[in-house]
Amino acid sequence: MLYVYRFGNSKADGSARLSALLGGKGAGLAEMTNLGISVPPGFTINTKVCVQYLKTGKYPKKLLNEVKQGMKFIEQITGRKFGSAENPLLLSIRSGAKASMPGMLDSVLNLGLNDSTVDGLAKQTKNRRFALDSYRRFLEMFSEVVFDLPIEEFEKIFDTEKNRQQFKLDSDLTENTLEYIIRHYKIKVLELTGKSFPEDPFDQLWMAITAVFESWNNPRAQEYRRIYKIPKDWGTAVNVQAMVFGNMGETSATGVVFTRNPANGENEPYGEFLLNAQGEDIVAGVRTPKPIEWLEQTHPKNYAQLLRILKKLENHYRDMSDVEFTIENNRLWILQARRGKRTPRAAVKIAYDMHAQGMIDKAQAIMRISAKDIEALLHPMISEKEKITPLVKGIPASPGAISGQAIFSTGKAIKLGRKGIKVILVRTKTSAEDVGGMAHSVGFLTATGGMTSHAAVVARGMGKPCIVGCEEIKIDESGQKAMFGDLEIKQGMKITIDGTSGAVYSGELKTQEPELSQEFKTILQWTDQIKTLQIRTNADTPQDALVARKFGAQGIGLCRTEHMFFGAKRIWPMREMILASTSEQRARALSKLLPFQKQDFIGIFKAMAGLPVTIRTLDPPLHEFLPKDEKQIASLARRIKLPVEKVKQRINLLKEDNPMLGFRGCRLGITYPEITEMQAQAIFEAACELTRQGVKVLPEIMIPLVGTQAEFVHQEKIVERVASLMMAKYQIKISYTIGTMIEVPRAALVANEIAREADFFSFGTNDLTQTVFGYSRDDAGKFLNQYLDKKILESNPFETLDTNGVGQMIKMAVRLGRKSKSNLKIGICGEHGGDADSIDFFHKIGLDYISSSPYRIIGARIAAAQAVLKYKKYTPH
Amino acid sequence: MLYVYRFGNSKADGSARLSALLGGKGAGLAEMTNLGISVPPGFTINTKVCVQYLKTGKYPKKLLNEVKQGMKFIEQITGRKFGSAENPLLLSIRSGAKASMPGMLDSVLNLGLNDSTVDGLAKQTKNRRFALDSYRRFLEMFSEVVFDLPIEEFEKIFDTEKNRQQFKLDSDLTENTLEYIIRHYKIKVLELTGKSFPEDPFDQLWMAITAVFESWNNPRAQEYRRIYKIPKDWGTAVNVQAMVFGNMGETSATGVVFTRNPANGENEPYGEFLLNAQGEDIVAGVRTPKPIEWLEQTHPKNYAQLLRILKKLENHYRDMSDVEFTIENNRLWILQARRGKRTPRAAVKIAYDMHAQGMIDKAQAIMRISAKDIEALLHPMISEKEKITPLVKGIPASPGAISGQAIFSTGKAIKLGRKGIKVILVRTKTSAEDVGGMAHSVGFLTATGGMTSHAAVVARGMGKPCIVGCEEIKIDESGQKAMFGDLEIKQGMKITIDGTSGAVYSGELKTQEPELSQEFKTILQWTDQIKTLQIRTNADTPQDALVARKFGAQGIGLCRTEHMFFGAKRIWPMREMILASTSEQRARALSKLLPFQKQDFIGIFKAMAGLPVTIRTLDPPLHEFLPKDEKQIASLARRIKLPVEKVKQRINLLKEDNPMLGFRGCRLGITYPEITEMQAQAIFEAACELTRQGVKVLPEIMIPLVGTQAEFVHQEKIVERVASLMMAKYQIKISYTIGTMIEVPRAALVANEIAREADFFSFGTNDLTQTVFGYSRDDAGKFLNQYLDKKILESNPFETLDTNGVGQMIKMAVRLGRKSKSNLKIGICGEHGGDADSIDFFHKIGLDYISSSPYRIIGARIAAAQAVLKYKKYTPH
Repeated sequence: MLYVYRFGNSKADGSARLSALLGGKGAGLAEMTNLGISVPPGFTINTKVCVQYLKTGKYPKKLLNEVKQGMKFIEQITGRKFGSAENPLLLSIRSGAKASMPGMLDSVLNLGLNDSTVDGLAKQTKNRRFALDSYRRFLEMFSEVVFDLPIEEFEKIFDTEKNRQQFKLDSDLTENTLEYIIRHYKIKVLELTGKSFPEDPFDQLWMAITAVFESWNNPRAQEYRRIYKIPKDWGTAVNVQAMVFGNMGETSATGVVFTRNPANGENEPYGEFLLNAQGEDIVAGVRTPKPIEWLEQTHPKNYAQLLRILKKLENHYRDMSDVEFTIENNRLWILQARRGKRTPRAAVKIAYDMHAQGMIDKAQAIMRISAKDIEALLHPMISEKEKITPLVKGIPASPGAISGQAIFSTGKAIKLGRKGIKVILVRTKTSAEDVGGMAHSVGFLTATGGMTSHAAVVARGMGKPCIVGCEEIKIDESGQKAMFGDLEIKQGMKITIDGTSGAVYSGELKTQEPELSQEFKTILQWTDQIKTLQIRTNADTPQDALVARKFGAQGIGLCRTEHMFFGAKRIWPMREMILASTSEQRARALSKLLPFQKQDFIGIFKAMAGLPVTIRTLDPPLHEFLPKDEKQIASLARRIKLPVEKVKQRINLLKEDNPMLGFRGCRLGITYPEITEMQAQAIFEAACELTRQGVKVLPEIMIPLVGTQAEFVHQEKIVERVASLMMAKYQIKISYTIGTMIEVPRAALVANEIAREADFFSFGTNDLTQTVFGYSRDDAGKFLNQYLDKKILESNPFETLDTNGVGQMIKMAVRLGRKSKSNLKIGICGEHGGDADSIDFFHKIGLDYISSSPYRIIGARIAAAQAVLKYKKYTPH
Repeated sequence: MLYVYRFGNSKADGSARLSALLGGKGAGLAEMTNLGISVPPGFTINTKVCVQYLKTGKYPKKLLNEVKQGMKFIEQITGRKFGSAENPLLLSIRSGAKASMPGMLDSVLNLGLNDSTVDGLAKQTKNRRFALDSYRRFLEMFSEVVFDLPIEEFEKIFDTEKNRQQFKLDSDLTENTLEYIIRHYKIKVLELTGKSFPEDPFDQLWMAITAVFESWNNPRAQEYRRIYKIPKDWGTAVNVQAMVFGNMGETSATGVVFTRNPANGENEPYGEFLLNAQGEDIVAGVRTPKPIEWLEQTHPKNYAQLLRILKKLENHYRDMSDVEFTIENNRLWILQARRGKRTPRAAVKIAYDMHAQGMIDKAQAIMRISAKDIEALLHPMISEKEKITPLVKGIPASPGAISGQAIFSTGKAIKLGRKGIKVILVRTKTSAEDVGGMAHSVGFLTATGGMTSHAAVVARGMGKPCIVGCEEIKIDESGQKAMFGDLEIKQGMKITIDGTSGAVYSGELKTQEPELSQEFKTILQWTDQIKTLQIRTNADTPQDALVARKFGAQGIGLCRTEHMFFGAKRIWPMREMILASTSEQRARALSKLLPFQKQDFIGIFKAMAGLPVTIRTLDPPLHEFLPKDEKQIASLARRIKLPVEKVKQRINLLKEDNPMLGFRGCRLGITYPEITEMQAQAIFEAACELTRQGVKVLPEIMIPLVGTQAEFVHQEKIVERVASLMMAKYQIKISYTIGTMIEVPRAALVANEIAREADFFSFGTNDLTQTVFGYSRDDAGKFLNQYLDKKILESNPFETLDTNGVGQMIKMAVRLGRKSKSNLKIGICGEHGGDADSIDFFHKIGLDYISSSPYRIIGARIAAAQAVLKYKKYTPH
């Protein structure tokens, strides 16, 4: 068995299949070499050597000889000599594990430089300053990696000398100064380690190899492995490779090129290059690179070669590639080829085209599209030309760009919105009381809150652009103006928000409407043939329902009934109902609400004709519906003919310390059965009337926040009784089901008991995440960022489902539920229903459907199809 | 096989062993008869007949004949004849299932009465009025049970006639009136059923038997079975028994007697009787019964007989019995014997004495004591003589009686308390801000809140009497007075609260201190030899710790560190720390708190020398420490040299929508590691200094509200680092452990991951109940009573652990935790640690210890021993 796998001159000992042994980088270099692509020659010391060395502190006996053979191999191909003062071979020593661990492990470049080889480099490059600067950098890097010396010690020397000589830029340093610095670097090494810096290139090589192996166990790598669950015993490989230089005069160049256009997906190479330069010059952006086509003029042969290689790489990897190359004295070297990053638009086009070209099949085409990013294609964007510097930035909570008047109060937003004026509601935060104003606004902007704050959730539900947590906004107490960073924005001034990027602009910027390409529509049809999860939508209004249907929703998975009570005519009887002191008073107020609810359901059932509609009975704490300011309280008191003080007392009684865990969900309908009765009556009257008109209605009634079987049964009986009464009254039979949300841990723990009674489960993952973690969504901002920074959490559990905790709870409930009722229909209607990673999990554990906000449906369709394709490999069916 | 089991004349077909077949009552009657005790003769139709009848609607063929034989048997023994107009035999027909289902199933008394036998009864009793009244009652009962007629129809007839005749009391009705009523009852039956009331006694009998069997399936019985999980297919037996009458003149009597004194446990019969009376006369309380001893004067033979029977019953059941008897014409009949209810004090005495007499073993003695009720023995009680009518009543939240000045503000309570004045703090509700005032009060009284409200929890922790949810108290806005129901109580007026009963009295009542009897101490020693659970205490002060030790605590299971910061000198640096804007400022404030914390721990470690002390790091939301009123805010602003507006802003930033799920627990220590550092330093400095003095210290540091392994590791590392530093500084080795509270569901779900790092788990069942149910303890009052009334919940889950939901979560965590670390120490420190039913569960699932408030330790010791004895039967070891 080999310890050292060589590659170069179109032949390699390894291949892509050996990534466990050679690491990702080593396997890739071998693969390219085997393809006949000119990669700078080198060799890979395999991961087994690493494991053995870290365990025993010793290398295999045969390793030394194999490395020497490897060195000879490189010298032969490059025609250079390691340690030569005339034509020195320089090496890069890089780590490369099976899994990518960017920046965690160590590397050393320009290895082989010493006081004599530096002259050789100067001759080769005809640039002594460059050679000296490379030497200086090598000394720093080697000292840090191999001797573990603090980089600051070298920076101090460098800066002191730079200041003393009054140089402004690093590039101003003269050769003399660099020589001075190099001398002092070596003195520092001697001083700190007690040993001279190793002059022998082979000593350097051996020390660097050892350092890279040892870096596998540095603390940050250990931490990274812990987080990403990478086994400790994989170890890293070490890649030793010849350095090539693009800065050997006008015969040399360096560049980056994509095999297709990464912005729009057009099938033409797209890239840029610099003559007489190193790769880092392109990154640094000091010189402006030229379009790749221009390379034909200076290096026609190399350009033709490059095009052939690009084609070859694409054909081989069957994907758009991002290729780094260097031309050293008219010789083309490919340094790296990897999967090219692309915009969502380009991803769709490339996937479609490659399928049309016969390069990939439909499944592969679908896998090429990022379900996460695709939503950006569906919303208006700020025109390319318009882009200026934003005033402030916040968290992009609901995508799309829109302009409108900045309005700081809900009342004002309603007033202007009704007149047809485009309003952007700007608030410190929003609550259920603001929903009326939000319905009349085109977008929202809040100073506090995260991805799952009230504003963000409502915005995504309504499909309106929204930015939250924009902390630089301070709304004046007068409510007439606000500071946006340093700029004062008066109420009524125009602003533009881009919910895709989180940027807020002053004034009205032009936006462009998106359109789904024919290619995209075709791919979406493929996903529907593949996916097994049904995709439903969360929608509270006929408008939302229609948008969702356009995007391919297969039903409504969550229709919240509470937002229906915030309209001007409805909020008063709602408040009357809440403050009623007898059940007769309550029934009277509810009877005023009944016609409204019925009309709401008629609209929604019509929009969703032929598809199932899951309606959740009243859920939020009642105090959300009550007025907070004196004027409104006084007005309410007049309407319900009670003294103001009495009204205030009752409002106070409804206040809660922890409303999230308080009097809400089915606790309302159990305490006040009249509420559930009214809602059931509205649902079944609407259903009967539409059925009579020939509209197909499939109502599913969902009881929220159930934690015990008895709670469910209590509400189920009410709904069944009202349903029978209404069906008898209309002489019409409606086929309906009654199910529950699983959103507190207890419901999951006793899912077997609940499933004996319920027709379906729908996981409310927002609340379940809150209760499983004990995090309030509204308050978690105080520590959640710290938790993400300190890697206590990998991701925000309100955005991507915590499969390890919350997910286990869900799995348990699915198992227990299906044990009682094998055909139990199970879905999910929390925010996670629109998150691709979470959809993957929901597919895996066997849910029947997910429900997401309308604009996330397309992404969900893709994610659901991808999940099928992903697990098909393991469980073919 | 028999369908009918007869009993009478010292011989029975059945026995106590046959309770499944004969029901509890039937088996008991058989058992007593077999003992030679004179029970009115009768027979039991077994439960199999019930099951068959309910399934098929038919009786076994042989049943009729067996019932007839049974009737002959009764007639023979009593010398009476069923249906006779001279000497009629009357029967009682009662249900009796295997499990007790009090009041759920039907019974009929005085069966056999008709227009002719009523004359016989009049002759027998020499009381025609009584005979007619019995007949009237029989008609009502039979009609309701057998014909399912609404009782109101009969009450209407009765009341109309009573009013027409202007009678005040039922007993004023004349024979004529009763005859009139009886006639109209029969007319009503004919009117409602279309049939005459059955005159034939045997028809009556058969109809009553059927009705009792059918009552097994009435809705309230079904509901009861659902709640108490009694299988539907058990069925009920029917007991047919001769009626006997204690009202046949001065030769007759009726009474109730306990085999020992149920109040103090003295070994002497204790009871009372009435001459010429029925059992209901004793219950009604119209005539005053005489002490049982007086029976010797009128019925010397019967009295001697009764004493022999009492002895026999006690020897047979080996327990104190409660016996109902009737003497009919100088003949003694025992109607019922059951386990006698007794006070906690009597329970201890009886158990000890019976063991001393060799009647029961130690295990049985322990099982005889109610772990739930025993706490009442430990607190002062209101003197027997003092009892007057309470002003108002609330929920008894922490037992014991105490008098003091009613004080309505925390500030005033502190002021007076410091002067040594006994203060009862009366508040609408309490919060962490009141803890200072509570420490200076002798008891608390709140208008709102339940058993687990802040006031209740703190009170039980401090062992001070407390009443909560006393809704008739309205504190005036002035804070100077309050309405206690209709009475105005001015601040400073004396009141007395009895936290054992929930009663509030005006003025100062005498109380008496309890003392543990020698018997009780002996039994407690037995429990310690048996129980396997360790019993620790929740204690935050050396005083609490000493009380707990006296009661037998084996360590501290929860020492909360936050209450330590409310003292006058400590609250200011605490607030400074909270509002610090840099970590230097925070460290400075913390360094002021350090000496206080260290002193606290020195005190507690000393009090607990040689026993483990579990200290929880800071847990509550920080805003609990911040001032709310303007004056205090201004004062804080001056101290920390910030503008008042700025201070208000910062306080506002810390406000939370759902503090229970907010920035608290280890989230504090992770965001501000300086806090954990300071606390660790205080713990280890205290431990080192005491160890140096020769005190044995066993600290266990507990990290609260952990939900992920990473959270625990973060805090663990800090504690370990500080511990090493301190031990090095003092040159002393402390053996300590670091563990965590399991109080959010996620911790239970990933308990295997956390157990890899943690030394111990302690379940915080209060918070776990909140998060598993999604109930806020502070807000659940709004629906929890409804839930208990509507039987949605069997008991308040904050008092008795919800074994079905929360318990399953705990079991899972125990299993997962021990999978990772088989010797993981596991305990529980929530309120349930002091609840007997919950302790039973904790023992069963294999916990190592429970921790309860000091005054609940003795009950916990008993409950822990009882759990061992209970499960020993099934799993001997």
